[in-house]
Amino acid sequence: MADGSNTVQARALLQQCLHAHLQVRPADGDAAAQWVEIQRGLVIYVCFFKGADKELLPKMVNTLLNVKLSETENGKHVSILDLPGDVLIIPQATLGGRVKGKNMQYHANSGKEEGLALYSQFVSLCEKALAANSKCAEAGVVVAHGTYGNRQVLKLDTNGPYTHLIEF
Amino acid sequence: MADGSNTVQARALLQQCLHAHLQVRPADGDAAAQWVEIQRGLVIYVCFFKGADKELLPKMVNTLLNVKLSETENGKHVSILDLPGDVLIIPQATLGGRVKGKNMQYHANSGKEEGLALYSQFVSLCEKALAANSKCAEAGVVVAHGTYGNRQVLKLDTNGPYTHLIEF
Repeated sequence: MADGSNTVQARALLQQCLHAHLQVRPADGDAAAQWVEIQRGLVIYVCFFKGADKELLPKMVNTLLNVKLSETENGKHVSILDLPGDVLIIPQATLGGRVKGKNMQYHANSGKEEGLALYSQFVSLCEKALAANSKCAEAGVVVAHGTYGNRQVLKLDTNGPYTHLIEF
Repeated sequence: MADGSNTVQARALLQQCLHAHLQVRPADGDAAAQWVEIQRGLVIYVCFFKGADKELLPKMVNTLLNVKLSETENGKHVSILDLPGDVLIIPQATLGGRVKGKNMQYHANSGKEEGLALYSQFVSLCEKALAANSKCAEAGVVVAHGTYGNRQVLKLDTNGPYTHLIEF
């Protein structure tokens, strides 16, 4: 890109949790809201930018699941695959915002259809990676994820979120 | 900077909350852990980089407290000052990390003393700004903050964190 202003294709924000609870369907009439939850593990907030290529996704999933940010009982840092721990994926388009005066603008964000396709494939690759990992399969870890386009009603309990930003 | 690799002086991550609870002193012997809490408002995770200038702080506080990210009962977005709502400031040095292989490196982060000085002044400026705002003063909003250098044990309850990243 000539002006170098935005060569980032995706932004992921990682937080460690003891427990997290995310609404995946709001209450509707008599139907109660639906929630997913995870126990000890990793929360991945994800946002895609315009021009993000789906070929990026395997590398992205590989990096996020292998970076050593999860703390063992002994205080050692290992990957979420090695912990092993649960994963909660939250679509978070707001992460793509830029301040303009007193407002945020989201001009660099991927379009809705494109963003949904990338998000769905990202979730699917995470699920496959955890299912293929013997430690995770044995421990019965869970991959949960939010509904793209919904309000992400989240309750988070941590022993220190240890927040990290990783861009791709 | 010749290579333009890091001209960012500070990174702030914003999340909206209904309620948040942060440990400011761990349990020690017979002494129970100490916590601060806020009700509806804004959580600001903050990280300073090497070379961050304290002259940046007033502008930074001004931007963060005036950007319209807080949702009113009617679904309109206003600043945290206009909501008015509580503010919880969390020092989060991990936000300065960069992936290197399977590990994170924090080479760009400000040193401890420098970081503590910037953080303390940032907190103080936020407190002053909310105290000087008549809406906030009348509503009795709270500014709470974490202890620099501690583990930030956090419990967060949201109606959608609406996560934003703002760099300075």
